[in-house]
Amino acid sequence: MTNPSVPASAEKTKSVLLLSGGLDSTTLCALASDRRREIHALTFDYHQRHRCELDAARRSAARWNVAEHIVLSLDLSLFGGSSLTDRSIPVDHETAIEHIGEKIPTSYVPARNTVFLALALAYAETRGASELWIGVNQVDYSGYPDCRVEFIETFERLANLATRAGVENAKEGRRAFRVVAPLSKMSKAEIIRLGTRLGVDYAETVSCYSPDADGRACGRCEACRLRRAGFAEAGLPDPTRYVGNSQ
Amino acid sequence: MTNPSVPASAEKTKSVLLLSGGLDSTTLCALASDRRREIHALTFDYHQRHRCELDAARRSAARWNVAEHIVLSLDLSLFGGSSLTDRSIPVDHETAIEHIGEKIPTSYVPARNTVFLALALAYAETRGASELWIGVNQVDYSGYPDCRVEFIETFERLANLATRAGVENAKEGRRAFRVVAPLSKMSKAEIIRLGTRLGVDYAETVSCYSPDADGRACGRCEACRLRRAGFAEAGLPDPTRYVGNSQ
Repeated sequence: MTNPSVPASAEKTKSVLLLSGGLDSTTLCALASDRRREIHALTFDYHQRHRCELDAARRSAARWNVAEHIVLSLDLSLFGGSSLTDRSIPVDHETAIEHIGEKIPTSYVPARNTVFLALALAYAETRGASELWIGVNQVDYSGYPDCRVEFIETFERLANLATRAGVENAKEGRRAFRVVAPLSKMSKAEIIRLGTRLGVDYAETVSCYSPDADGRACGRCEACRLRRAGFAEAGLPDPTRYVGNSQ
Repeated sequence: MTNPSVPASAEKTKSVLLLSGGLDSTTLCALASDRRREIHALTFDYHQRHRCELDAARRSAARWNVAEHIVLSLDLSLFGGSSLTDRSIPVDHETAIEHIGEKIPTSYVPARNTVFLALALAYAETRGASELWIGVNQVDYSGYPDCRVEFIETFERLANLATRAGVENAKEGRRAFRVVAPLSKMSKAEIIRLGTRLGVDYAETVSCYSPDADGRACGRCEACRLRRAGFAEAGLPDPTRYVGNSQ
């Protein structure tokens, strides 16, 4: 336990946790479990290319003893506009690690974190949960607008205006909902070190945006490059199964 | 035309419009058409009880010449918590008109407008649309937290923080997205008068939360009561098909 002052009988804080099955959200799930949260995990089947993510999310949910796991189908491919959901937009395999973050990548899914947090909020309100856990982090901040601290803070304000629980708590000067983003100031290497300490098996997580039919990672998309660099910086072996001898 | 100074050749403003097929959103659609918007209508199949709403939305989209109409499936019944999506919670047929708005009704769908606006934002960004039209109005303000002006303003702020278009416009001191809620200060009677002037056929719209298999309105749920009172106050005949002789 991270906080020995919490008695074993203390009630767990009900939390909705956005679980994609990737490296960040799996570490987040391990951390929430360590911090004695009652986890209600929410995964989106948003017709993404990398659907083996969904199996990874189910494995993480089982491994970390979540109280409930909902996989919600949401066909964002109807809107298009991202290489993750629109097959007419190629996945970027060319950007070198030092140039990632210079511009918003083609993998940006329009308003994704707004959509995901909005649905997490709906779920939280029906379950009486007070926390929304999301695995955004510093590495993402440079490229994705909806990973910035200012975005997260504004969503928390909205959540407390938007809901019955928010209105009722506000009468007593309390906030009904907190957005919890504990990875937000961490580098990929720091996240990997944290997860390793908590017992995460990263071989079970999926980061790649275009894995092959066998679930092996391409090694060249931005997600693979950031992941590889993270293990290298952390000084830990990368257990990811990569296709062939790709660099 | 509402504004004769706009030349006929002026480019229409691209707008995403939340269209449920009810009285308010159909009036909203007529108004957006009158104000020369290029309308991208978004309707949710959220496993609501009153599914004949979806047919009404399709009729409205056709009548008002929307540029595109997407019906997005979103199974909010997985979360439950509202009489509109959770069949274990009965629709309220008892609250008299003068007591509607005293408390948040059982028909409140947790975080619904947050979820709907988030998805409207995703759609708008992929289409290069700059406006999100939503038919919230004064009558709803009393009961639903996510119909209040403060909520709408905070969502607009979030939309401009959350998106690529928001970030790029902010560099030039502009807002990429506006949330347009022109019915927000209007009573039901005023909305009905406006729609009637614009040519809305209210017989084609659905408000009832528990219509019968033939699509006839119950006349007793809060939505029916507000609708009936609106026509009475407007001094216009109510073309709604009600079940039997219900009051």
